[in-house]
Amino acid sequence: MRQVHQEIASWLKPLGLDVRVDAAGNLRGLYPALSPGAPRLLMGSHLDTVPDAGAFDGILGVVLAVALLEGLAPAKLPFAIEVVGFSEEEGVRFGIPFIGSRALVGTLDEALLGCKDSSGVSVHKAIEEFGLNPDEIPRAAMGDDVLAFLEFHIEQGPVLEHLGRPLGVVEAIAGQTRMDVVFTGRANHAGTTPMNLRHDAMAGAAEWIAAVETLAVGTQGLVATVGSVETLPGATNVVAREARLTLDVRHATDPIRAQAVKDLMSQAEQIARRRTLSFHARVRMEQRAVAMDSSLTADIERAIKKTGALPHRMVSGAGHDAMILAEKVPTGMVFLRTPGGISHDPAESVSAEDVAKAIECGLGLLRQLAASPSLHTRTHRA
Amino acid sequence: MRQVHQEIASWLKPLGLDVRVDAAGNLRGLYPALSPGAPRLLMGSHLDTVPDAGAFDGILGVVLAVALLEGLAPAKLPFAIEVVGFSEEEGVRFGIPFIGSRALVGTLDEALLGCKDSSGVSVHKAIEEFGLNPDEIPRAAMGDDVLAFLEFHIEQGPVLEHLGRPLGVVEAIAGQTRMDVVFTGRANHAGTTPMNLRHDAMAGAAEWIAAVETLAVGTQGLVATVGSVETLPGATNVVAREARLTLDVRHATDPIRAQAVKDLMSQAEQIARRRTLSFHARVRMEQRAVAMDSSLTADIERAIKKTGALPHRMVSGAGHDAMILAEKVPTGMVFLRTPGGISHDPAESVSAEDVAKAIECGLGLLRQLAASPSLHTRTHRA
Repeated sequence: MRQVHQEIASWLKPLGLDVRVDAAGNLRGLYPALSPGAPRLLMGSHLDTVPDAGAFDGILGVVLAVALLEGLAPAKLPFAIEVVGFSEEEGVRFGIPFIGSRALVGTLDEALLGCKDSSGVSVHKAIEEFGLNPDEIPRAAMGDDVLAFLEFHIEQGPVLEHLGRPLGVVEAIAGQTRMDVVFTGRANHAGTTPMNLRHDAMAGAAEWIAAVETLAVGTQGLVATVGSVETLPGATNVVAREARLTLDVRHATDPIRAQAVKDLMSQAEQIARRRTLSFHARVRMEQRAVAMDSSLTADIERAIKKTGALPHRMVSGAGHDAMILAEKVPTGMVFLRTPGGISHDPAESVSAEDVAKAIECGLGLLRQLAASPSLHTRTHRA
Repeated sequence: MRQVHQEIASWLKPLGLDVRVDAAGNLRGLYPALSPGAPRLLMGSHLDTVPDAGAFDGILGVVLAVALLEGLAPAKLPFAIEVVGFSEEEGVRFGIPFIGSRALVGTLDEALLGCKDSSGVSVHKAIEEFGLNPDEIPRAAMGDDVLAFLEFHIEQGPVLEHLGRPLGVVEAIAGQTRMDVVFTGRANHAGTTPMNLRHDAMAGAAEWIAAVETLAVGTQGLVATVGSVETLPGATNVVAREARLTLDVRHATDPIRAQAVKDLMSQAEQIARRRTLSFHARVRMEQRAVAMDSSLTADIERAIKKTGALPHRMVSGAGHDAMILAEKVPTGMVFLRTPGGISHDPAESVSAEDVAKAIECGLGLLRQLAASPSLHTRTHRA
């Protein structure tokens, strides 16, 4: 990460940016405005990714911000531009995503700093070991002078490719519920237990997995996934005593997601009752849907159209730093088409043509924003 | 195992038995006949069991043979009785069951002796390390003087309990097919991949697990089990790329089992095709059904009736040493009711009343056989 900071700083400094690493490990570079004391626009994405990942998730949004400044410099705008390379968006090390962006909105608190990685090192300690001072985290928070945040990111899904469009504009980031679900029956000998005397946890789980798929297919915009299934004792010749499943449900509209989860829990209970199994579920994560700023979204859509591309308004099924920053400032997000929808994999890619379109869109957007009389009157969110 | 051999030998010797351990590690004790040169009846079961097991699987059948001799001694019958405590029936250490009983029918060959445990020790080496001589294994084989083999064993299933009967007589040991089954789709982000663009290996697997259950429920006497399911990558927020399942199918009639396996494979292929998944299956084990000796089965049924209990003719879904010995000699098997059908578990049990019934049945059977003019004319199987 230190090398990444050095590399990107070496691109930003020649453009006249003042570059630093804040106390949460975010790389931040400020490109000045036409006049001192002007507000600032934040642009960027995250620098980390998952193990065995590709080369574009996150960092493409930082590199695109650099490219936009390269396209702009030495011209100045009525607002400053701060490039942000967020730290720890994925949550790989501590199991908590968005550590860097939380510092900007002031929610990287003591509880979060106390969380530990698998070898017992806390976030607080890791920040110190990186050579930063956790006491200075409050100074990483955004001031009142931030106009908006703009994030470019690969879609990480197949929708834009399926539609044949290079760029999408995100209207909302889907809310999500993640649960652990357990069906418990009785372990029995697979040879000696007739079908009618079984309490097969996996057979019940399979029936429910089918119900999860059916509900999601039948509910517009809903995605629901059972990504992990584990059987206990998990032997060829033993009827499963326990089936442990995960459930991931997402939708742009919170009440639709809540209703879907409720329906699935009730179906699981019915299946368990009919088969004399027991059923338990535990919510591991619950995250509300976050809307992007409607005015900025319209601006982005216009900028995409000006490149000659057909924009696609869409919901992001994945969480992003934009979701965190939207708590405080008007936020907009642009997706780049992701070949095969493949992400978090070495095969992750983008086409040079699509990146060129994104740069064209970004430069157009900066021009639009600079010319917009409404920009300076936008109020900050609570 | 050495302590078990000593303990059981210490019960047998006072009854006048000549006790030894053969080169395959089977404990063998010979109770002489009325006159020298008479044929012999084999009785017993296995001495080993699985890890974390109960106290009755296998060894109850050896202890019952001891109890029958205790009930009989010092009286002699027109045939000798050889008590056998088989070694390595479960196949825990080498992954190969019935090592001890194979020695009696002469199929413990070089290939089998070369199989290794998880730390690289071969069966051959393990036999040597126990203090036995593998070169003497051929001498462990039964001679032409064996009339029949009789095995008492806990049912390890819920059928007798369900029917309220203490004893069952086994007509056949079911044939079985064990397979590894893999559905392969594409790993995708659970948030960004719409339902209609997924190739979810686990959703396909779940549909097939339901089909396995439906077929088994609808086919008289068939049991089919998916006991182990594994998902790859197995993450909450990733659509499963691969689902690895096991399949265990058993039936007393081989063509019915073969047809069921064929139907299930064809259903899996249809499901995979419809969902654009790939499907692969590999047979890991295929075992033909084995019939018990019909005359001995009728004798056992009569002996059970004489105790006042209602016998139940049944198919054993599990494999037993009796299955191996039936290749060479007329074989009969008696099941004892197993509370809750619980076996291979510390909670495994039998009731003292049921064991008393089994002893009564066994003594009655010995009397019947001793009085039977047909016994001595029974021919050996090829």
